[in-house]
Amino acid sequence: MGEYKLLSKIKSPSDVKRVSENDVPRLCTEIREKLVETVSVNGGHLSPNLGVVELTVALHRSFNFPKDSIVWDVGHQSYTHKLLTGRYEIFDTIRQKDGISGFPKMSESRYDDFNTGHSSTSISAAYGIARAKTLSGDQSHTVAVIGDGSFTGGLAFEAMNNAGRFNKNFIVVLNDNKMSISRNVGAFARYLTTVRIQPWYIRVKRITETVISKIPLVGEPIKSFLRSGKSKIKNLVYKNTLFDCFGFTYLGPIDGHNVEELENAFSVAKKVNSPVIVHVVTKKGKGYQPAEESPDEFHGIGQFDIDSGEPISSHKGFSAVFGSEMCRLAEKDKKICAITAAMTDGTGLNDFSKIYKDRFFDVGIAEEHAVTFGCGLASKEMRPVFAVYSTFLQRAYDQLIHDAAIGDIHLVLAVDRAGIVGNDGETHQGVFDVSILNTIPKTTIFSPAYFDGLKKSLAHAVYICDGLAVVRYPRGGELYKPSDFGEESISYDIYGNKSCKNLLITYGRLFSYACKAKEKLKKQGIEICILKLCRIKPIDSKAIEFALQFDNIWFFEEGIKNGGIARNFSDFLIIKNFKGNYRIKAINDKFVKQMSVSQALNMLKLDDEGMVSVILNDLEGNDKNNEKTT
Amino acid sequence: MGEYKLLSKIKSPSDVKRVSENDVPRLCTEIREKLVETVSVNGGHLSPNLGVVELTVALHRSFNFPKDSIVWDVGHQSYTHKLLTGRYEIFDTIRQKDGISGFPKMSESRYDDFNTGHSSTSISAAYGIARAKTLSGDQSHTVAVIGDGSFTGGLAFEAMNNAGRFNKNFIVVLNDNKMSISRNVGAFARYLTTVRIQPWYIRVKRITETVISKIPLVGEPIKSFLRSGKSKIKNLVYKNTLFDCFGFTYLGPIDGHNVEELENAFSVAKKVNSPVIVHVVTKKGKGYQPAEESPDEFHGIGQFDIDSGEPISSHKGFSAVFGSEMCRLAEKDKKICAITAAMTDGTGLNDFSKIYKDRFFDVGIAEEHAVTFGCGLASKEMRPVFAVYSTFLQRAYDQLIHDAAIGDIHLVLAVDRAGIVGNDGETHQGVFDVSILNTIPKTTIFSPAYFDGLKKSLAHAVYICDGLAVVRYPRGGELYKPSDFGEESISYDIYGNKSCKNLLITYGRLFSYACKAKEKLKKQGIEICILKLCRIKPIDSKAIEFALQFDNIWFFEEGIKNGGIARNFSDFLIIKNFKGNYRIKAINDKFVKQMSVSQALNMLKLDDEGMVSVILNDLEGNDKNNEKTT
Repeated sequence: MGEYKLLSKIKSPSDVKRVSENDVPRLCTEIREKLVETVSVNGGHLSPNLGVVELTVALHRSFNFPKDSIVWDVGHQSYTHKLLTGRYEIFDTIRQKDGISGFPKMSESRYDDFNTGHSSTSISAAYGIARAKTLSGDQSHTVAVIGDGSFTGGLAFEAMNNAGRFNKNFIVVLNDNKMSISRNVGAFARYLTTVRIQPWYIRVKRITETVISKIPLVGEPIKSFLRSGKSKIKNLVYKNTLFDCFGFTYLGPIDGHNVEELENAFSVAKKVNSPVIVHVVTKKGKGYQPAEESPDEFHGIGQFDIDSGEPISSHKGFSAVFGSEMCRLAEKDKKICAITAAMTDGTGLNDFSKIYKDRFFDVGIAEEHAVTFGCGLASKEMRPVFAVYSTFLQRAYDQLIHDAAIGDIHLVLAVDRAGIVGNDGETHQGVFDVSILNTIPKTTIFSPAYFDGLKKSLAHAVYICDGLAVVRYPRGGELYKPSDFGEESISYDIYGNKSCKNLLITYGRLFSYACKAKEKLKKQGIEICILKLCRIKPIDSKAIEFALQFDNIWFFEEGIKNGGIARNFSDFLIIKNFKGNYRIKAINDKFVKQMSVSQALNMLKLDDEGMVSVILNDLEGNDKNNEKTT
Repeated sequence: MGEYKLLSKIKSPSDVKRVSENDVPRLCTEIREKLVETVSVNGGHLSPNLGVVELTVALHRSFNFPKDSIVWDVGHQSYTHKLLTGRYEIFDTIRQKDGISGFPKMSESRYDDFNTGHSSTSISAAYGIARAKTLSGDQSHTVAVIGDGSFTGGLAFEAMNNAGRFNKNFIVVLNDNKMSISRNVGAFARYLTTVRIQPWYIRVKRITETVISKIPLVGEPIKSFLRSGKSKIKNLVYKNTLFDCFGFTYLGPIDGHNVEELENAFSVAKKVNSPVIVHVVTKKGKGYQPAEESPDEFHGIGQFDIDSGEPISSHKGFSAVFGSEMCRLAEKDKKICAITAAMTDGTGLNDFSKIYKDRFFDVGIAEEHAVTFGCGLASKEMRPVFAVYSTFLQRAYDQLIHDAAIGDIHLVLAVDRAGIVGNDGETHQGVFDVSILNTIPKTTIFSPAYFDGLKKSLAHAVYICDGLAVVRYPRGGELYKPSDFGEESISYDIYGNKSCKNLLITYGRLFSYACKAKEKLKKQGIEICILKLCRIKPIDSKAIEFALQFDNIWFFEEGIKNGGIARNFSDFLIIKNFKGNYRIKAINDKFVKQMSVSQALNMLKLDDEGMVSVILNDLEGNDKNNEKTT
């Protein structure tokens, strides 16, 4: 490791073009070593990046970025792109506070044409870029790189449908690694399998030799030549595939680990005066044996040992507890179903998926469908639980209202990674779910702090609640629990001296920080009581009554302030004519950048240190009339 | 009209089956007459319903609903279904307060298996229903009926991808009327055109005669027969179409106005042990000449004259003003682009679409793509404005955060039908947009009350704002404007006696009601001042300062209370240590059912009468400690 003779000299894509054909394999090896070395320390997405090394090198040898434009779908596979576009020297800061992002960021580099993070957006964005170029007379190319998994998201098809009638060059690279994050299970994946094994698996190298030699380099576009031609070549390159139905010329399948083939394919693709799909077959995790063997495990990973591939730390988290609780419920109740949007492993549903196969539904990266499909199941008496990361639930807001809530459908959501998630940054923070769920009439929301609260509220959501019922919990495991704090109630708990003047209200894992803050304040002679909510919507009226007796109330919330629960609470206080002081500390109209969870909570003044400083500051009266910017 | 000899005797679907083949055309004619007669009085969706009369009759003759299940995509074409399932007698209450819905409603009839209203949900929901049936051992059929327009929504493809590997019967009827709400312009529509004109346009009648006679009615499924068979029939029924790529057996195209052909097709479809697409070609508006000639105009319509087809009232609304303002801006500025999700007419963009063709983008019923595509345009210096109904914007929440706001992309949203929309009911109310936009950091939101405010705030959003900027306005036109109220400011206006004790805060069209309330209260000796906001996020700090001098403040908001602007305002009051009375009147955790806009505002106490009663009640001190349920 550390011997990056070729890679270290690459300052920009023009240097990539200068690497001799013979040296390209060596460059790719160095890139892979750098990827493994860096991710083993910083954590991040490994398998997706190892799979696209040759593809990225070939793209930079074939196109002129940033004159040409590229949009990386999801963007977790853009590490090689970063290494080749002037970010080699700072690559070890990736995913760290103030470092470079693990996703493309327009603010980071002019080579990053569009911010990504969530799946299936690339064709839409790239098509917008292509149309803008047409309007301004810019002739440069626009490329979207999208995985087969991302094609299970409907947004990709909306974009294909819209772009399919474009009459200029527009290139979509389908990076077919035979999986999304989990193995890709839908009809589209099966279709790609049939395409890959077609007898007309023709290497583009041969196509270019035969085709290119017959047409003028400028002028007559390849597509119309092929379409009109009586030539047999028509049947080799241009097939009546799914993509053709959408108006895309199809090129492929191409070996995604052969740079020369890839370059040939792109040189053909650039000459087509219509949307074109370049179907590239890659191997996720390529070149690092542990990742090749277990691409799922190395999809997104924390620190690991390079030799063995073993993660350096692992502990039982909320996801695992959720997963085993689901199995326990499903064993007793044949109506329990689990739904995931391509996140079987991440949401802890691995065991469930194996034991209760017929009641387990991995629907692809398709959160909208997951919700509406779940509503269909529920409408015929099943008890579906859709496990989804908070940030991805954002995609199904309309379905939650339109398909679940309006019809009083009893759908349960298990919202994982709720709250700050850390190093994935702005695009992945789970800080909006409470605010959007809060707008949906009659929704019940639980936000437990500990495993026992998760178990109890899940059972309650499944068996006691009506309509849309949500249990949300953070990434990782349990935090500090005071020894004198007993079992978590699913409604609310009071912890501390009930007859003091100061009340701290919070929910979820912030309770752990609040307990620490309470202890620190006590040492300074200040008593606070804690009102810990578990059911945050609706709030128990007794909890509200309880709060009224205090002179000073603080509500700390790990989520966006607008639309949050602290705001609901202020309403209750107003209605009850509360005349004491009430102060909300939440995330105020801003995105939270990448850094560790604890760094972020500290920055937001939502950890014990922050709580202490906010409370002391308020009690000293310095902060009564001005809200802090954070 | 009014002679419904056959129709009036149909009390349930079994009566439909009893109608003799010879009488079916007469039944269809009666249904059409009833549809035209009712919609001409109540308003509603006409063209879509006229197009599916024979299809609906054939479905009810072929299946056993409600034992079999049916999900109507969008649902605005379910009127005939309602007429045939026991709702003939109450059909004239459709879309009225306390009447039957213009969409399927599970709470209304056991024949309505799933609530719809928004596009593209039917395959997802129906597949959920089908899977639930499999789990409970129910062998009955499940049918989704979906238009070609709805196929432009990605959710339909997410569902196709997921359902395509199902190994049981599952029927999707593609109602191909060659349009969505506006003419369907995407690649999928072009694909369907090629399918329709294929030389192998084989009537299913012939297929059934040839095929059915050769296979046992039970046993060997048709699909595997056709797949394995060397027979020529294989090429007639089973084609390598787009649907086949998704794992669906394809049957069609079928004449959607021939009941016998349709019944034959369904009898084949029911025997296929896999997902099957029945491609039915219909004519929107069929049988009523004005609607056949202008299906767009009769898609959703108010009262009209049956003989001429002319609408009974029409007036210039916010949509028209928006449309002409867009043309004005586009004339001076070549960077202005307009985007619609299949709502060219509804959003007032007809003229723009004709004059500025190259800068006009109808992307299909694809709100997610519309936003991300718009972000692509904006990232390369265009100035896109996405015009969208409030209720449909719910579909693009994640894209607004992920693709627009995080990257500081300057995208402008023109949110039409903001607020209560009336007779379409719960699924279409525009009462969530403010709450969800409010959660998105750095978003600017304008909510003007009058046309001049719309024009000014649109220009401001396009040229002065950064990032995501939104102008929202209601369905219909301007309401009451006091003669002494001048031009609307885009920030805030104060109207009334500044030195009185009572302040009413509101925004958008509620200002008109507030002015009337002010006049009514004055007659009772009570002075109120009105703070009218136009820019509701962020609120001008001077407006907040101004409010602090009052003893009593009421905030009336035509939107969901949780996450709304009134809640933001309460925060400012708390921070500023306001010790007066503050009362919010908004839509509190409930859906608003179908009724006219004025009926709804009255019920919600958001009209002048409601405002007066709330204010009087509060001033009399009867309502200090208890919040009303509404």
